[in-house]
Amino acid sequence: MKRIAVLTSGGDCSGMNATLRAVVRAGLVSGLEVIGIQKGYQGLIDRLYEQMSTRSVSNILQRGGTFLQSARCKEMRTAAGLKLASDNLKGMGVEGLIVIGGDGSLKGGYAIQQQGIPVIGIPASIDNDIPFTDYSLGVDTALNNIVHAVDNLKDTASSHDRTFVVETMGRSCGFLAVAAAIATGAEYSLIPEEPYNLDQICADLRNRFQEGRTNSIIMVAEGAGKAADIADQIKHRIGFETRIIVLGHYQRGGSPSVFDRILGARFGQAAVESLLKGDGGMMVGLQGADIVLTDLTKVTSSGIRPINPMLPRLANQLLA
Amino acid sequence: MKRIAVLTSGGDCSGMNATLRAVVRAGLVSGLEVIGIQKGYQGLIDRLYEQMSTRSVSNILQRGGTFLQSARCKEMRTAAGLKLASDNLKGMGVEGLIVIGGDGSLKGGYAIQQQGIPVIGIPASIDNDIPFTDYSLGVDTALNNIVHAVDNLKDTASSHDRTFVVETMGRSCGFLAVAAAIATGAEYSLIPEEPYNLDQICADLRNRFQEGRTNSIIMVAEGAGKAADIADQIKHRIGFETRIIVLGHYQRGGSPSVFDRILGARFGQAAVESLLKGDGGMMVGLQGADIVLTDLTKVTSSGIRPINPMLPRLANQLLA
Amino acid sequence: MKRIAVLTSGGDCSGMNATLRAVVRAGLVSGLEVIGIQKGYQGLIDRLYEQMSTRSVSNILQRGGTFLQSARCKEMRTAAGLKLASDNLKGMGVEGLIVIGGDGSLKGGYAIQQQGIPVIGIPASIDNDIPFTDYSLGVDTALNNIVHAVDNLKDTASSHDRTFVVETMGRSCGFLAVAAAIATGAEYSLIPEEPYNLDQICADLRNRFQEGRTNSIIMVAEGAGKAADIADQIKHRIGFETRIIVLGHYQRGGSPSVFDRILGARFGQAAVESLLKGDGGMMVGLQGADIVLTDLTKVTSSGIRPINPMLPRLANQLLA
Amino acid sequence: MKRIAVLTSGGDCSGMNATLRAVVRAGLVSGLEVIGIQKGYQGLIDRLYEQMSTRSVSNILQRGGTFLQSARCKEMRTAAGLKLASDNLKGMGVEGLIVIGGDGSLKGGYAIQQQGIPVIGIPASIDNDIPFTDYSLGVDTALNNIVHAVDNLKDTASSHDRTFVVETMGRSCGFLAVAAAIATGAEYSLIPEEPYNLDQICADLRNRFQEGRTNSIIMVAEGAGKAADIADQIKHRIGFETRIIVLGHYQRGGSPSVFDRILGARFGQAAVESLLKGDGGMMVGLQGADIVLTDLTKVTSSGIRPINPMLPRLANQLLA
Repeated sequence: MKRIAVLTSGGDCSGMNATLRAVVRAGLVSGLEVIGIQKGYQGLIDRLYEQMSTRSVSNILQRGGTFLQSARCKEMRTAAGLKLASDNLKGMGVEGLIVIGGDGSLKGGYAIQQQGIPVIGIPASIDNDIPFTDYSLGVDTALNNIVHAVDNLKDTASSHDRTFVVETMGRSCGFLAVAAAIATGAEYSLIPEEPYNLDQICADLRNRFQEGRTNSIIMVAEGAGKAADIADQIKHRIGFETRIIVLGHYQRGGSPSVFDRILGARFGQAAVESLLKGDGGMMVGLQGADIVLTDLTKVTSSGIRPINPMLPRLANQLLA
Repeated sequence: MKRIAVLTSGGDCSGMNATLRAVVRAGLVSGLEVIGIQKGYQGLIDRLYEQMSTRSVSNILQRGGTFLQSARCKEMRTAAGLKLASDNLKGMGVEGLIVIGGDGSLKGGYAIQQQGIPVIGIPASIDNDIPFTDYSLGVDTALNNIVHAVDNLKDTASSHDRTFVVETMGRSCGFLAVAAAIATGAEYSLIPEEPYNLDQICADLRNRFQEGRTNSIIMVAEGAGKAADIADQIKHRIGFETRIIVLGHYQRGGSPSVFDRILGARFGQAAVESLLKGDGGMMVGLQGADIVLTDLTKVTSSGIRPINPMLPRLANQLLA
Repeated sequence: MKRIAVLTSGGDCSGMNATLRAVVRAGLVSGLEVIGIQKGYQGLIDRLYEQMSTRSVSNILQRGGTFLQSARCKEMRTAAGLKLASDNLKGMGVEGLIVIGGDGSLKGGYAIQQQGIPVIGIPASIDNDIPFTDYSLGVDTALNNIVHAVDNLKDTASSHDRTFVVETMGRSCGFLAVAAAIATGAEYSLIPEEPYNLDQICADLRNRFQEGRTNSIIMVAEGAGKAADIADQIKHRIGFETRIIVLGHYQRGGSPSVFDRILGARFGQAAVESLLKGDGGMMVGLQGADIVLTDLTKVTSSGIRPINPMLPRLANQLLA
Repeated sequence: MKRIAVLTSGGDCSGMNATLRAVVRAGLVSGLEVIGIQKGYQGLIDRLYEQMSTRSVSNILQRGGTFLQSARCKEMRTAAGLKLASDNLKGMGVEGLIVIGGDGSLKGGYAIQQQGIPVIGIPASIDNDIPFTDYSLGVDTALNNIVHAVDNLKDTASSHDRTFVVETMGRSCGFLAVAAAIATGAEYSLIPEEPYNLDQICADLRNRFQEGRTNSIIMVAEGAGKAADIADQIKHRIGFETRIIVLGHYQRGGSPSVFDRILGARFGQAAVESLLKGDGGMMVGLQGADIVLTDLTKVTSSGIRPINPMLPRLANQLLA
């Protein structure tokens, strides 16, 4: 194996640059040439790429986002687009591809693998919705971003006896909302994986208020409801004026946490080693303390990563 | 003078605790007793207060919000409420009151002054809308909060060729939006003080896009438009998908910046010294490098602090 | 079981407050009374304690340090001191004790267990030197502190073609130094677990310089050498002027990271459940994704936690 | 005027990149060509430069350090070096030079002005030792860095009843130490501008200890003493074990604060406008709310900026 390529695809997250650095450096150390594809799969179609050197990835470790950029690519979902992408890779002399991204990006990677080019996927998704890894890249940084913002809100909440509804990312996966609830001491966390009863929450809020506990934080994953709707319903049911904040893309960026920098280093190195060993069609993942490979077919056909039931239980118990 | 009181009123901001600490310590050093009134003017009505010691204010300097809490108080707007508040102050033996808050709070302070109790106001308002001071307490921390969030968004904006509309606080005053635009290199800042032309901005966005400058940040003060509306209009006019974020109460809290800690220390000390000299009915303010006293009547009758025209000009010029 | 106690001992770290909150809330939810002992084992000797309520632990989750305080206690190493501490616990009606601290603190806990009071230990040590847990409390926050400082230094290093030697904590354990090296892209990490050759490093520095790579960071764990000595030797051997920084206690404090907040919540809850099940003489630890109990005898007799050999290898490979 | 040049010289600081961006953008908007000189005056000697475009300065606003790099340059102190530098500037067709740096750098700028090329200086020095400006570039960020570190230490100080001695930068100027003392509530600040009496401090520390106030922070500017010496003397006199931290280059870097970003924008723009108006041999400075020009001869012959006596007084009074 002489030449590999790497791309970032789908929503960006913090830690992608650290991972790119690890892929490039681990590749060069092993005597490989490493090609950086720009703008995700679109760059494969449009042949946007450059050869990477040690310098290409110096001073990027600490930056959020992805210096190779990312983009959506509809063509990749067509047979013609997929063929063009694969032919372009072969034309570049690429013998292995590393794809850093979420569920859709990994599916694209599997499709390329089917065209005969070994592909290793690296899970990157702040929602932590990808199965077969305890953590995807970007999750820990996103959590620290959320918690920083909620710590700010708590200053006001406790200064004013106020209730806040905070909406986090997470369309199908409540990991961010429930983990942030534990980490901030939020009173409630509403997640798509578990039914919740707003009547009961309202009754509880009223009881708390009567006991003098007059401020509270409700974390809600976007897949479990809109912050604005929940605030309206609380007002409608018990008359409380709540304030809302939708954290949106603020969650994605920022200098990566140590956890994400080291995870990115490990993922990147493991992906290169895996290609060198002749693997393909696999995703690297963190399971416990270990990096473990799982078939991309298994990853992309297993649905959303189930939330560890310990987390909601812990959140409920610490609410007290 | 033997005994003074202090309260925080209106929206909380970072630096209030630092100011409270300065008031208490400067008061004690001068041989005064200092009473802390809880929950703003409501606490004056309800006689919620405690005597402050050095310990009362230890380890709070670095916290956001206000440990004395703040609240709205409708009763203070009635003659009966005002009378009750003043009588309570007199009943406590209070010979001078320091009020930390925004425009409405300073008006309340002036009303109490009219009842015969000397009052010194300290301007605290993250919007920076109070006249006769270059900076109100909390502005610098709020700006740093905003800029931290926008720096995060820029990671995604530059990774994805994306346009963001970011809504800051500022109902009548665009200071936060325009200062944050300069500090983040945002391409546009829309403020209540200056008309803007969305057609022209859209034309400009399209030109930029054609030149390959495909990401941009539009800062908008809440008084100049809703982020959601502006995003809709951009989509309607030129088809660009933008992302929005409404920073809301995230802007208020957090550990105060050095600027706000020192400003709070200076304001607090100056307010105590001013009461000791026999002043009343004044607000302390920062003018250039100096602390300057202005009549509360003048402060509360002069409308919104005008934005320094240098700032919008600077923002426009650096846009390039 | 009706009443348990908790104390923090040894060097403080971020996450202790989050853990105390979890112990208190999990205890109260289970119908237990929870006693907080102040100033570590010294407070056991001196009977410094208070009963904890939900309020005792509200608004502390996000603070560094330990609100129960910690202290060294020589008396605990004497039979008389140990007896007095145990008798005091029995006198308070305490049927189980949770000890949050490092190696020495866990030994103290085992000694009390020998006196007939069930004890559960929670590993807290920013060095990550305690065996049978992947992470001790405080490690992740300390790492983020270190990396924040080194990111700052890199701004100067790359502006000035300068070499820095950065000394981290870690008397016998190089975890912080090597993990921070990976997370910052430092060129070298010197740790007590691995011999290093300063001649070779100097030769390498000179080669790098000749290739135009004129700035570098050398991380050194305190157990592997003093920053000042290493800087002197580099100057002596190859004439390079280096700058040093000894991060010291800056590493310990600060608002805990999300990882440490959740780890503290899990450790605290698991410790309470463990006492309720009748366990004693055990330490909770994180092994992979799970909380696992290990005999305190095993923990305290197994020496320093070995560093995962993957880490130095990763550091070396990414140096490129 | 068709072409100007800009360089950063001396110790780097946060905000230099924001200033460079402002110089380049303000220059381009005014129809000028802008040359960026690399590595300070050394780059003038060695003809290291490149023409700046809008892109050259995109995405650097938020970075610490200086992307043009800085360096010491002994040749500039010789007549031959100065002549070469000036001839090179003339050879490039440069009609005006903007120098961003400290005292020595401004002296160099004045020397070039004497060779017939208009020079405008921008004060950049984290010590805040340059006269005729309330703030130099980088001061506010450095202060926030210091305060962040001391906030961390206070977690440990209050958890352990411990005394810390914290050494800041400031060879002749105690601004950082005294401002940080106010902002962190440190008990003492030792600065070169004011004599201090260690006997009295020790007596005071002992009294405080006896009153139960068992932790304290002593800030010391490097020009007022070495942290290690002061700690030794305290130990020698009253037996207290103190911990020290020398903040060193950690103070310089990091993402610039909003204050420094806006100050840099204003300084940069004002410097360009000043050259366009035909000025030369001047330094821009912040005086109150205004940007004011002062003759470089006056700046470089007036010695160290005197510390505002309000600051030490404020620090002393808030100590209580």
